[in-house]
Amino acid sequence: MSDNSVLIVGSVALDTVETPHGKVERALGGAAVYSSVAASFFTPVRVVGVVGEDFPKEHLDFLASRKIDTKGIQTIPGGKTFHWAGSYEGDMNQANTKLTELNVFQSFSPELPQDYRTSKYVFLANIDPELQLKVLDQVPDAKLVACDTMNFWISSKKDSLLEVLKRVDIVFINDAEVRQLTGIVNITRAASEIHKLGPKYVVVKKGEHGAVMYCGESICFAAASYPLTEVADPTGAGDSFAGGFMGYLASTGEVSDMNIRNAVIYGSTLASYNVQDFSLGMFKRLTKDQINQRYNEFRQIVHFEPMA
Amino acid sequence: MSDNSVLIVGSVALDTVETPHGKVERALGGAAVYSSVAASFFTPVRVVGVVGEDFPKEHLDFLASRKIDTKGIQTIPGGKTFHWAGSYEGDMNQANTKLTELNVFQSFSPELPQDYRTSKYVFLANIDPELQLKVLDQVPDAKLVACDTMNFWISSKKDSLLEVLKRVDIVFINDAEVRQLTGIVNITRAASEIHKLGPKYVVVKKGEHGAVMYCGESICFAAASYPLTEVADPTGAGDSFAGGFMGYLASTGEVSDMNIRNAVIYGSTLASYNVQDFSLGMFKRLTKDQINQRYNEFRQIVHFEPMA
Repeated sequence: MSDNSVLIVGSVALDTVETPHGKVERALGGAAVYSSVAASFFTPVRVVGVVGEDFPKEHLDFLASRKIDTKGIQTIPGGKTFHWAGSYEGDMNQANTKLTELNVFQSFSPELPQDYRTSKYVFLANIDPELQLKVLDQVPDAKLVACDTMNFWISSKKDSLLEVLKRVDIVFINDAEVRQLTGIVNITRAASEIHKLGPKYVVVKKGEHGAVMYCGESICFAAASYPLTEVADPTGAGDSFAGGFMGYLASTGEVSDMNIRNAVIYGSTLASYNVQDFSLGMFKRLTKDQINQRYNEFRQIVHFEPMA
Repeated sequence: MSDNSVLIVGSVALDTVETPHGKVERALGGAAVYSSVAASFFTPVRVVGVVGEDFPKEHLDFLASRKIDTKGIQTIPGGKTFHWAGSYEGDMNQANTKLTELNVFQSFSPELPQDYRTSKYVFLANIDPELQLKVLDQVPDAKLVACDTMNFWISSKKDSLLEVLKRVDIVFINDAEVRQLTGIVNITRAASEIHKLGPKYVVVKKGEHGAVMYCGESICFAAASYPLTEVADPTGAGDSFAGGFMGYLASTGEVSDMNIRNAVIYGSTLASYNVQDFSLGMFKRLTKDQINQRYNEFRQIVHFEPMA
């Protein structure tokens, strides 16, 4: 029997977020949460993370209600959950971090439950690359591995990150990080350099400007962003993208150049829905029909053909 | 006999430009020049502008060699040609203007030669909106009118610009200008407001992030930018876009929602070629085959389809 589950390792958090459209305090968040829920629309998910005793049980119940195996989420007795506080202003393309309380996340060391170790599809969300390597050592049967990262690791743990890149098939990375990692301003040339470091697919996330995927020397796919009339809260957009991408791909079991294009569109679809509400608000009411509808809208808005 | 000519009114300039890739001094430039040459790959062009006695005859000869009727370019005896000097740094998304010598352009008042006045396709490049209105009064048979503008006119001549917008079918505008004109940060909502001001098609140019076209309340088309590995000089990209767009559309004579998508792609194609060299360098050696090849590449890089 084929195993279409996606293994996701990353942060589980409580987020305090303020945007021009409102504010939430200690709401459910974290890269592993956004990506797991996004993936769960397509396929079963196994999540690995850590929380403190303050983490509301209702959040774990919510995840468990969504085809997400949560036994990989460890609860540290007496510990406090990772807490991030930030705000977005203006065009909301950049988060202003006000507070990062790592708490139990500081000593996070991912140990995979035995039945997670046969996972074929793996997403290493944004955590210390040394931990990402540790996860990779525990998934010998992985067929497709993707990772995310951030500016902090590029500057502080570049060697470990380069080790990770050698061992993944796909990297999700934003345009600023592409430039930081390579020292090359031109995104197309920079992405080509990253390809040489290991990943077969380099997926550059550009927020409101969509996403571009590079395969080898050149671009293979450019996706528009979905034209929302209102963004409530951008938190988790990149993680939702990665989760939708991996969840879709795992559900089909087909890792071809053409199907990876679909994965980009499903990733964009999940990201676009996620930002329409705070925290996991939109995902809690989102349906598969709405996902498919937006996928089809993506098809329409990029379509053109030569005149007959 | 149908007249597929495009009438273009705007600046003819000598540009001094410095980028990380080199420098040119008093090279051929100006919005009317870039857009006319771009359009001339598809259809005959009639250009209206003004130059000084210092304007090299070879430039006029070059334009005349490209299906461009230049009798609308007036030479002012003893006058000096509009001279712009600027530089680009880093990601080259923004020009740093060092010098703007309007010279003869300061008293430019477009008077159309008699045989220009029956033009069906009109592009009003970025000039004082009062002059754009003056041109509109001289083209009673216009079937499709497009305009460009800039931040300077939005702040200094907003009322005239609003008059222009009432009378055009298409506006080419960048994302910063969209926000400035409407006071709305969200581009999709802002574009919808601009649509209400008159233009049926609002084409938002986003530079390296492509272009998005809004028709009425919602988006109708999103185009990726062509992934160049090297941008030599971004000067004239927007004008090349507009020229390619209008030239293609006029050449086919079909102004339909679907064919306007092709116009966006041909506009992007011409813009992407233009920035590969300084001044009109690339256009001087560009062939129709290369244009069609890039159009087809655009089709490939945005293509995706559901799995069978």
